[in-house]
Amino acid sequence: MRGKFITIEGCEGAGKSRQMRELAAYLEKKGVDVLVTREPGGNPISEQIRTVILAGKNTAMCDECEALLYAASRIQHLTETVIPAIKAGKTVLCDRFVHSSLAYQGYARGLGFEYVEQINQKAMDECMPDCTLFLDISPRQAFIRKGGVDKNDRVELAGEAFHQRVYEGYKKLLERYPMQMVAIDPSGAVHQTTAKIIEELQKRRLIP
Amino acid sequence: MRGKFITIEGCEGAGKSRQMRELAAYLEKKGVDVLVTREPGGNPISEQIRTVILAGKNTAMCDECEALLYAASRIQHLTETVIPAIKAGKTVLCDRFVHSSLAYQGYARGLGFEYVEQINQKAMDECMPDCTLFLDISPRQAFIRKGGVDKNDRVELAGEAFHQRVYEGYKKLLERYPMQMVAIDPSGAVHQTTAKIIEELQKRRLIP
Repeated sequence: MRGKFITIEGCEGAGKSRQMRELAAYLEKKGVDVLVTREPGGNPISEQIRTVILAGKNTAMCDECEALLYAASRIQHLTETVIPAIKAGKTVLCDRFVHSSLAYQGYARGLGFEYVEQINQKAMDECMPDCTLFLDISPRQAFIRKGGVDKNDRVELAGEAFHQRVYEGYKKLLERYPMQMVAIDPSGAVHQTTAKIIEELQKRRLIP
Repeated sequence: MRGKFITIEGCEGAGKSRQMRELAAYLEKKGVDVLVTREPGGNPISEQIRTVILAGKNTAMCDECEALLYAASRIQHLTETVIPAIKAGKTVLCDRFVHSSLAYQGYARGLGFEYVEQINQKAMDECMPDCTLFLDISPRQAFIRKGGVDKNDRVELAGEAFHQRVYEGYKKLLERYPMQMVAIDPSGAVHQTTAKIIEELQKRRLIP
């Protein structure tokens, strides 16, 4: 049987990686065969692309170039990692997917949702997530919880105003993908957020 | 005044680089301000992308990933190098452009012309060449003239059948872009081919 594909989204420091680990641990206890992965990256070629995207020296990168590199990394990750795992019946948990490109490049950098959907069309046609969890926390709260930024990360250097636009982008995406995307409030304790995520995925009959 | 944008295409070993140098030398003698550049590459970010595309170890790269990487490299090259030069009045000579993606990924790898045009739409909207010169020589003849292949170049490892499809792809492109693309027979001596190129570009009033 085809496995499920669940992605998690949110601003920097929203707690995505932690919630992925908690969800994976829960599923493994239930006997579910889980693959945890992330974008951009997850395989050698995508990791090489990730290195180009995130290098602090690459300040001259134009927005379209960045969006196309994310799209390239994504389709490789899908082809090499995600689709084979889903076909093998695994539940794939992925930290970021096309919604990140839509929020970051499409909305915050101003390329438009349509452009980002256009260059990611094959990925979206072949493998849209069964559910996309959006950890709905403002950039300011998220930054405080994360405890500072990494100076070598070009994306994080863009500053707070940019991250506020990303957050607005995600809010628009909730309207654009109302069936598939769901907001989760992560402002409580970690275990409370995990409980909300599990409840939501159970309601949709995606996990036991 | 806006400068001209002239690109050169053809199979491996068709003599593109040599003809670019000859044409540049001619134009410089005529007092034209020339920029010679190439795809993929031409600036630090595009060169980093080129490294990922051409690395011999990246045999697992899917066709869409390759096409998106070329598109990413291209838009960066246009934004950072080609468009500023054209705006400054320079005549830009570029070794390969979107027609390479159309012939290699679109036709030979089977992604389709439409897919490649879709992911390269911004590049094609903003900066289509005033003329694309196609050095019309069969892959077999071209390989013989080049004198063997580079073992570390993943693209060249694809073999002769692939290059024959690329050649067919270029032939189809002559029909798809009849006004903008022109076939040049490079089977004679180097200076004869250069003379044909100069004559063709003069007829189109692109060079003195």
